[in-house]
Amino acid sequence: MEAFTEFREQSLPLIEKEMENFINEYTSNKRLKEAMLYSIHAGGKRFRPLLVLAAIYAFNKEVTTHDYQVAAALEMIHTYSLIHDDLPAMDDDDLRRGKPTNHKVFGEAHAILAGDGLLTAAFQLVAISQIEANQKVLLIQLLSKAAGTQGMVAGQAGDLQGEQRSLSLNELADVHEKKTGALIEFALLAGGILAQQPKEVVDLLGRFAQHLGLAFQIKDDLLDATSSEAELGKKVGRDEVLNKSTYPGLLGLNGAKEALEEQLSLGNGILESIKQTSPEFQPDLLRELLEQLRLG
Amino acid sequence: MEAFTEFREQSLPLIEKEMENFINEYTSNKRLKEAMLYSIHAGGKRFRPLLVLAAIYAFNKEVTTHDYQVAAALEMIHTYSLIHDDLPAMDDDDLRRGKPTNHKVFGEAHAILAGDGLLTAAFQLVAISQIEANQKVLLIQLLSKAAGTQGMVAGQAGDLQGEQRSLSLNELADVHEKKTGALIEFALLAGGILAQQPKEVVDLLGRFAQHLGLAFQIKDDLLDATSSEAELGKKVGRDEVLNKSTYPGLLGLNGAKEALEEQLSLGNGILESIKQTSPEFQPDLLRELLEQLRLG
Repeated sequence: MEAFTEFREQSLPLIEKEMENFINEYTSNKRLKEAMLYSIHAGGKRFRPLLVLAAIYAFNKEVTTHDYQVAAALEMIHTYSLIHDDLPAMDDDDLRRGKPTNHKVFGEAHAILAGDGLLTAAFQLVAISQIEANQKVLLIQLLSKAAGTQGMVAGQAGDLQGEQRSLSLNELADVHEKKTGALIEFALLAGGILAQQPKEVVDLLGRFAQHLGLAFQIKDDLLDATSSEAELGKKVGRDEVLNKSTYPGLLGLNGAKEALEEQLSLGNGILESIKQTSPEFQPDLLRELLEQLRLG
Repeated sequence: MEAFTEFREQSLPLIEKEMENFINEYTSNKRLKEAMLYSIHAGGKRFRPLLVLAAIYAFNKEVTTHDYQVAAALEMIHTYSLIHDDLPAMDDDDLRRGKPTNHKVFGEAHAILAGDGLLTAAFQLVAISQIEANQKVLLIQLLSKAAGTQGMVAGQAGDLQGEQRSLSLNELADVHEKKTGALIEFALLAGGILAQQPKEVVDLLGRFAQHLGLAFQIKDDLLDATSSEAELGKKVGRDEVLNKSTYPGLLGLNGAKEALEEQLSLGNGILESIKQTSPEFQPDLLRELLEQLRLG
C-alpha cells in the first residue's frame, strides 16, 4: 500500500509533464492549446496511464521516457473522449471533476477541435517516440483498435443507442467492454509489450484487463446510483435521467455489488496465473489498482 | 488529358472500395458504420487520394494495395473533417455535395462519433497495411502532423477565430496552409515516399504541394464568392455571411484571380525542377491536377 502510494505520487507528475510538454511543443494555435491543456489539467485518477506503468513495474523493468509517452498518449485519448462525451449533443454535462466542462469554457466548436486535436496528438506522440519501429507499429495498431470503431467509439455509439431502449445484460457488457474496457485492455497490453514480455504473458494481462474493466464499469454505475454530486464532482443519477441501462438497473444494487466482487476475484486469480507463468512478476501494484475498485 | 481521365476513372473505384471494405470490416456498431459510410459515399473530387496515386504514377511505379490504403486513409481524414466542420457548433451547414450533411441524417451525436471513428480508422488502416515498418512509422508521423494540432485542426481553430476579426494576408495564408494545405502536402510527400524517392525529391514534391494547396484555397474562395448553390451543391456566399476573411475579400476578385494564376505558375515551375532532378519523372498527371484549379 505504501509502495503503491509512492508509485502513484512518483508517476503522476511525469505522466502529466509528458502530456503538457507534448501539447505545448506540438500545437500551433493558442486557444486550441489552452482548450486542450484545460482538460489535461482537469485531473482525474489517471487510471489508464498508471496501469501501463504498473504493468511495466510488475516485471521489475525500469520505466523510461518512451513508456511515459505511451501512457500519456493513452490519457490524451481518454481525455478527448470525455470532452466529446460531455458535449450538448452527447451527454450534455456542465461539470466534470468538479470543474466546468470544456465546451462551457471554450465553446462547443473549440471543444470539438480540442478533442480532435488530442486524439490525433496521441498517435503523433507514439509515432515520434523512441520505441523500436515494429513495436511502435504494434502499439499504434492496438491503440487505434481500442480507441476506434471496434472499441471506444463503437461503445459510445452503443451507449447512445442504449438510451432509447433497454439493453440485456449481454448487450450492456458488450457496450462497456468497448466503451471503457478496450482502453483499459490496451493499457495492460501496452505495459506487457513495453516490458518485453512473451505473447503468452501479454495475453494473460489482456484477460486481467477484461475483469478489471468490467469491475471499473460496475463501480462507476454504482457510484452514479448511490453518491452525491459533492462526492463525485459531477452530476449524479444521470443514468436514470437518461434512461440508461446500468448494472444496478438490471441486477439491483445488491446484485451489482456481487457482480463487482466476482470480477475483482477473477482479476486476482489471473494475477496469480501470471505469477505462475512468469516468476519475476510482482502483482502488488496491479492488485492495488484492482482493489481500489472495491466498495468502501 | 486522356491519360488523366483514364487514371481518374481507374483509381476512384479502387480508393472507394478500400475505404468501404475497411469500414465494413473494422466497425462493430451498425448505425456508426452507416453514418461513416454515408459520408464516405457522398462523393467529392477525391482530390487528396488522387494526388497520392498521381505522385506514385509520376515516377513510373506500379500502384499496389498498400498505396491505395494510404490514399484511402487520407480521404477518411478529409471526410471526418468535413463531418465535424458541418456541425451546428462549427459551420452549421445543411448541405454537402448536394446531399444533407451527416448530422442532418444521423443526428449530431452520431455525426461527432462518425468523425471520431473515421479519424481513428485512418491511423488504424495505415498501421495494419503491408508497408515496411520504418516507412509506416514515417507516414503516421507525417499524417498525424498534417491532420492535427500543427496542421488541419490548428487551421480549423484559426479559421473559427478569423470569423471574429479581419485577418491579414499572411494570417490568412497561415490558416489555409494548415487547414487545407497540410493534408495536400501530406498527399505529395506520401506519394514520393511510397515511390521510394530520395529526400531531395520528396522535399520538392512538398514545395509543389504548397503552391497547389494555396491555389486550391484561392479557387475555393472564388467559387464561394461567384457561384450559385446549384453549381456547388452547397450554400454559397457563406464566407461573407460568416464574415470570414477570404482572398477575394482581401485582394478583390481580380487580385485573387491573379494570385491563383501565380500559384499555378509556381507549381508548374517546381514540376520542371523535379524533372531535372529525377529524369524518370513524368509530370503530366500532377500538372493536370494543378490545371484543374485554373478558372474556366
